[in-house]
Order: sequence, then C-alpha cells, then structure tokens
Amino acid sequence: MPDTTNNPNRKTWLQVSKDSDFPIQNIPFGVFLTRDDIITIGTRIGDYAIDLGALHQLGYFEGIPLTDDIFLQDSLNDFISDGKKTWRLVRNRIGDIFDIENPALRDNENHRNIALFTLNEIEMQLPVQIGDYTDFYSSKEHATNVGTMFRGADNALMPNWLHIPVGYHGRSSSIIPTNIPIHRPQGQTMPENATTPVFGPSKLVDFELEMAFITTDANLLGEPIPIDEAEDYIFGMVLFNDWSARDIQKWEYVPLGPFLAKNFASSISPWIVTMDALLPFKVDNVQQDPEPLPYLKSDEKMNYDIHLEVDITPKDGEATTVTKSNFKYMYWTMAQQLAHHTINGCKVNSGDMMGSGTISGPTPDSYGSMLELTWRGEKPIQMKDGTERKFINDYDTVTIRGYCKNEQVRIGFGDVSTQLLPVFKK
Amino acid sequence: MPDTTNNPNRKTWLQVSKDSDFPIQNIPFGVFLTRDDIITIGTRIGDYAIDLGALHQLGYFEGIPLTDDIFLQDSLNDFISDGKKTWRLVRNRIGDIFDIENPALRDNENHRNIALFTLNEIEMQLPVQIGDYTDFYSSKEHATNVGTMFRGADNALMPNWLHIPVGYHGRSSSIIPTNIPIHRPQGQTMPENATTPVFGPSKLVDFELEMAFITTDANLLGEPIPIDEAEDYIFGMVLFNDWSARDIQKWEYVPLGPFLAKNFASSISPWIVTMDALLPFKVDNVQQDPEPLPYLKSDEKMNYDIHLEVDITPKDGEATTVTKSNFKYMYWTMAQQLAHHTINGCKVNSGDMMGSGTISGPTPDSYGSMLELTWRGEKPIQMKDGTERKFINDYDTVTIRGYCKNEQVRIGFGDVSTQLLPVFKK
Repeated sequence: MPDTTNNPNRKTWLQVSKDSDFPIQNIPFGVFLTRDDIITIGTRIGDYAIDLGALHQLGYFEGIPLTDDIFLQDSLNDFISDGKKTWRLVRNRIGDIFDIENPALRDNENHRNIALFTLNEIEMQLPVQIGDYTDFYSSKEHATNVGTMFRGADNALMPNWLHIPVGYHGRSSSIIPTNIPIHRPQGQTMPENATTPVFGPSKLVDFELEMAFITTDANLLGEPIPIDEAEDYIFGMVLFNDWSARDIQKWEYVPLGPFLAKNFASSISPWIVTMDALLPFKVDNVQQDPEPLPYLKSDEKMNYDIHLEVDITPKDGEATTVTKSNFKYMYWTMAQQLAHHTINGCKVNSGDMMGSGTISGPTPDSYGSMLELTWRGEKPIQMKDGTERKFINDYDTVTIRGYCKNEQVRIGFGDVSTQLLPVFKK
Repeated sequence: MPDTTNNPNRKTWLQVSKDSDFPIQNIPFGVFLTRDDIITIGTRIGDYAIDLGALHQLGYFEGIPLTDDIFLQDSLNDFISDGKKTWRLVRNRIGDIFDIENPALRDNENHRNIALFTLNEIEMQLPVQIGDYTDFYSSKEHATNVGTMFRGADNALMPNWLHIPVGYHGRSSSIIPTNIPIHRPQGQTMPENATTPVFGPSKLVDFELEMAFITTDANLLGEPIPIDEAEDYIFGMVLFNDWSARDIQKWEYVPLGPFLAKNFASSISPWIVTMDALLPFKVDNVQQDPEPLPYLKSDEKMNYDIHLEVDITPKDGEATTVTKSNFKYMYWTMAQQLAHHTINGCKVNSGDMMGSGTISGPTPDSYGSMLELTWRGEKPIQMKDGTERKFINDYDTVTIRGYCKNEQVRIGFGDVSTQLLPVFKK
C-alpha cells in the first residue's frame, strides 16, 4: 500500500501558513495534554493540534484495524507496535479527513470543536515511553574534530570508527520534551595540572546538535535485523539535544564511556515526523571507504536532506544562530546503526530511541557543538547582544530547529528549546 | 517502624528445609505465572510460591494502605513506588500470616489452595519492568586484574578509579530472568595482528559474576540523592550475570565503552531479596584510600556479607564450581553508587537496576569471570568431566548462586541459570 499523504498538490481546509513546518503533507505524531487536562495522542497541521483520540471516537478511522483506546494513551508505544502498515493507513486517513475537498469534518462545527485545539490550549508531552536509548557517534566530521582536539590530527579517528557505527547506551529517564528547563550539573572534575579531583558545578556545559529515530518492536532477543529490513522498523525522527558536561566527561569517561557528563538531561522535539513524510528528501549515502562488512552494506539510499540550525538566546536577550548543519552529512545511516545494534541479537522495542551523535558539517560554521564551534573555547562565538560564548551560560536557552524543503513542500520538525538554569539548590 | 521479620527464632507452619534460601526470615518479592496462566506478584517460603494478589483479595493485608490491584500486576514497579514504609508493613504482615502460631491461613484449606503453589506449578518472570539499567565497575580486584592484563601491573587502575564509582549505561531490553537460554552473539572483531576486522561468532563468551540492586523513584530530574538517604531508595537485590563477549568488546569499546559485547543478554535471579532481609549481614565497608569526596562519604556500614559461587555445567554433564567470591569485597558501596549516579541530577525511577560490576575476591579462585580465572585463557579450568574451559562453550549452562549465613539463619537468593546456545540461525 502506497503512502498517499506526500502528494505535494494536496490542500487542506485548515489555514496553514506557507512557511509552516506542518503542512498537510507532514502529519507527525505526538502526545499532548488538552485544555481539559486529558492526555491524548494527536497530530498537527499548521498551528492546529488535532486530537486523534476524539476523531477515533467520532468514527473517523472506521475501517482501519485499531483498538478503541489506541489514541487515548499517554504514549505512542502501542500505536507504534501496530506496525508500518497501520501507521500508513492512519496517516493517509488523516490526509483525507483534512483534504480541502472532504466536507465530513470540515463542515461539522461540533466535531471540529471537540477535536481541534490551538497550540496555546495544549501542552506537549514526551511522545513515547522510551525503554532504551542509544546514542551513536556517526558524523565523521564530529569524530574527526573531537579526535583532533584530544589526540592530534594524525590519530583523530579511532581504528574502529570506519568499520563500526560506534555507539553507547544512554539514560532514558533523563530525556525530556521541549520547554522543560534543566539545571547545570555538578560533579567531579580533574582540573588541568591538578593531582586530585574537585567537586563543583560543571564549567563546560555544551549542547550537541543531534537527531534521533524511534523504533517499533523489531525482533526477538537473539535475532539480528537485516540491513535491508531495518528502515521498516523505524517509525520516525525527532530533533535531539544531547546536553553534555565536557569537564565531567573528560575525567570520567575512560574506560567505560560517558556517564554523568550526559545523563543529566537530553531534550527532544515533541512531534515525531514519520519516515514516510521524509521519503521525498532521501539523498545518496555518504561514500564509505573502506567498504563496510556485508551485514552493514546496502545499495539503497538511506540518507536524508534535513536542514538543522541552533540558536542560543541569553536571558531576555536576542537569539544568535550559532551553527547551520544538515543530517545528510552523517557517515553511517540509521539503517546501518539499527543493523549493527542488533547483529548480536540485542532486542529492540517499540519506543526505543537512537540518537545520531553530534551532526557536524564540513565547515567550521556547521559544527554541531560549542566544543567544536569554539575549538575548546579558543575561538569564542560573538553573540548579537555583544557578549561572547565559549560554552553555555546559566539562563541561556538553546534551540534546535530542523526542516526539509524542496520546490513544492516544506516538512519540518518544529523545534526543541531548553533553558539552562543554575545548579539545583534545595 | 521496625522490621519484625528478621526475628531468627520465628518458625512457620509451612515445611521449610533447614538449608533453604527462603526461610520465613527472607520473604523476597517476585512475579510469576500461575498454573491458571494468571500473572501475579508473589513471595516464596521454602519451596512454596505464595500468590500475594490472591491473599490481598482474601483480605490478608487489611489495614495496610494498598490499592486493590497492587499485586495483580506483571511487575513490582508500582509496589516499589509505594516506598520503604509500605514494603516493611507488607513484609511484616507476610511474616505474621505464615507464623506457626497464626491459624488464619494455616487452618483454612480453601484459602491455602487458592494462594499457595508448589514451584513446579509456576513460571518465574522478570520481577520489574526495568526502565534504565546501569552497570558499575566497583570491585578493585576485578579492575586491577583486567587493568593488569591489558595495560600491565603499573598502570592497572585508571587514575579516576579510586575517586569515582565508575559506571556506564547498559541495555535494559536484554535483561532476562533465570532459565531463558541465549544465543552466542556474532559481530565484528579485530584478530591479533590483522589489519581489517572480521565478522563471525564471538570466540570469547564469558560470564560476569555480579549482583544488582533495584531502586524506587528517588528524585526529580535535577535533584541529587544524598549518600545518607541512598539506602532508603533501594528495594532489594538480585544475582546478576552480565554476559560478555570479550573479543567484540576489545574492538568496539574505545572511546565510548562496551556496547554489543554486553547487550546480547544479562540474566538475573527472579526473587528480589529486600534490603531489610539483608540487614543482619551488614559488614564494614572496605577501607577507602584516598578518602572520597564529601558527596561519597558516609560513616555508616553499607556493605554486605553475601557468599557467591558460579557453576559451569556442560550439556548432559556434571556441574563444576569455578569460583567462590563474596559481595563484601566491593570497594564502592551501593549507597555510594546511587549518590554518585544522581549527583548531576540524573533521575532514578522505580524498577531501575544497577549492577555492581564483576565481583572478584583477592585470591585467584575467587575471581568473577573466566577472563580473570583463566587469565585470558592462559590457565584453562579443569572441568569434572575431564574437559577444559577457557571461556564458555556452546550448550554450557552458567549458574550463579548466592546466600548470606550466620549461626541462626540463612537468607539466599536462589540462583540464576542460563544456557548458551550456538549462534542464532533463521
């Protein structure tokens, strides 16, 4: 069954501004709290949030095999478990319901009042209950930059990097949706030239510009997912800010990897944009040399052209865009990441989240973290308000935006925006 | 309110053999499937599994503030969320119900038939839905052994090891209860003296003798847990086998830590023994030098004397005990691990699991992994059937047992037993 939602000529009876991230061709999925304090699964078109639980109760999904309460839940996990065929049926139906030619909901004021909300009437929640979260390290530019800083240009990439989509497990309990402020973490660091560690607030809090994909239940424990099936198990993508404390990381990470430097918070954009919506923006994979082992090899296009940018906004100040990057720079694809993750039989569940790793482009203005943009603080960024930034200051808000665009349509992710507050005090 | 269940003189009207791990002083918690295919929360005394959901419906927990369905669930998470005071009330009540002097259930055959099962009538499940799983690396002997093998005796411990209870995030989706067979993982390795990696079954599959503790919801995102409160948020402990593929680990783990070498499976014993039951077995902490930073410092006893041993049983063969160790050798305590884990504000939830790391003792017969016991395969272990083991063979079953014992009582964990099958074939 084909996806019919991407037809770029389709128009909707809802008012949608021309530069919206959420035209009728997008139809993302999310979870929100309504004005009546009810939690529901919904979608978004333009600046309207649409209550899918209400539409289902009103009969708009008749003929699609869905349980009665599938959208009346506080997470998308069960819906995601229903699989790709069901995701498509539902997305196609939503496209039909809001098609400019379809009078059913358009001309039913009562139903519209029940199911449609303006954005200020709702509060976005985490879209999935994340069982496990994995973070990859799949941008060659990022790995090279960090490696150059810490080991010199000659040893920048570790010997395994070109053979393995290197990744590690993160902490799902610390993943938060947009607009939740966080505290500067405190912890142990080993100051330059010191012999004993000290305790205090991290001095080097950083963002990492990432995207993450969300999986369905893909396998049983013990069974690998073949690379050419991997994309079928990916529900969609979000923007991802993998907050990092560089000084804590430096002292703790050998030999078992980053831990407290990362698990104080990671923030995501709340609308999951489906892989179907992103189909028109598939682009060639980055050429891989050496050729990967067969379980990581595929001739399919599995990369995506997604524009990304990051703003820093000081308290009561003006936003400064500090970087512009693109998801297409990723060396390892999501399909390769998922095939690698399961080659040993690791089980993947509905609602699991996998981060790309910092997405740095080839030029210094496209790097995905302050560590790289300011080259460890050596080249501070000039802010519009006249101040400088080496890393993130207390009360700064970091905002990631992302969108795809061709001549006919723009499919966006909205944003993920998080303010850094000072260290927690009881 | 004190714990009354540990009275070593209490006797029960159930038949319990003298060397049972589960006397009336233990009262662990678990989840099982009954002969009627109903899932319930239960406890165990001797060789009886006791359906707490049924006992609650029959009114045996009257007076304790519990929701009606608190035990009619497929995980202990909600019960654990109720907090330490409730855990104690319930455990004390169970002790009373099965006290030899209490006729209420003892003399009610109908109720006994409803609530009591023999072990062959039930099937143990995972006791908690594990949101996040963290593994520490807190045995100094283990870290020293591994460090010596890979970096030489002079650089055995990393500079951070004596200052930080080093840990990393693991994969909760791959944690299984006892008696679930697993497959030998396949993956990338870099053979000695090779220049490109190869793909195939791991040749160095190992167990790691560990224990793990299970937490309740302890904090909000951003709020550290002070060390002197940390033990109040620990519900109990299980035996933990952190299966490892040493050859995969060696190639993948720099710089982000172990990943596919670990996440193919980790197995746990199914009965959670509460911290209250373990109280009589508290022993002095290992002397820490240098003194830890204040957030990791406490004058309380926070270590436990728990005997541990590991058997390897070849297919249709006889078991060989390959090591005997003890939890009391741990350098970093669970309270220190939890205080460290949250010092940056990382959120801890009900049902989270934290592994100790491999528990190696001071002598070569008390090491907690084949890697150490055979010193990377240089000194194979002689099995009772005349064969040798450097690592784990296909069809071997690895069994960890653990128990505490003083002159009056034995409190045990039962065992966790897992068979290694050959590589998965479709």
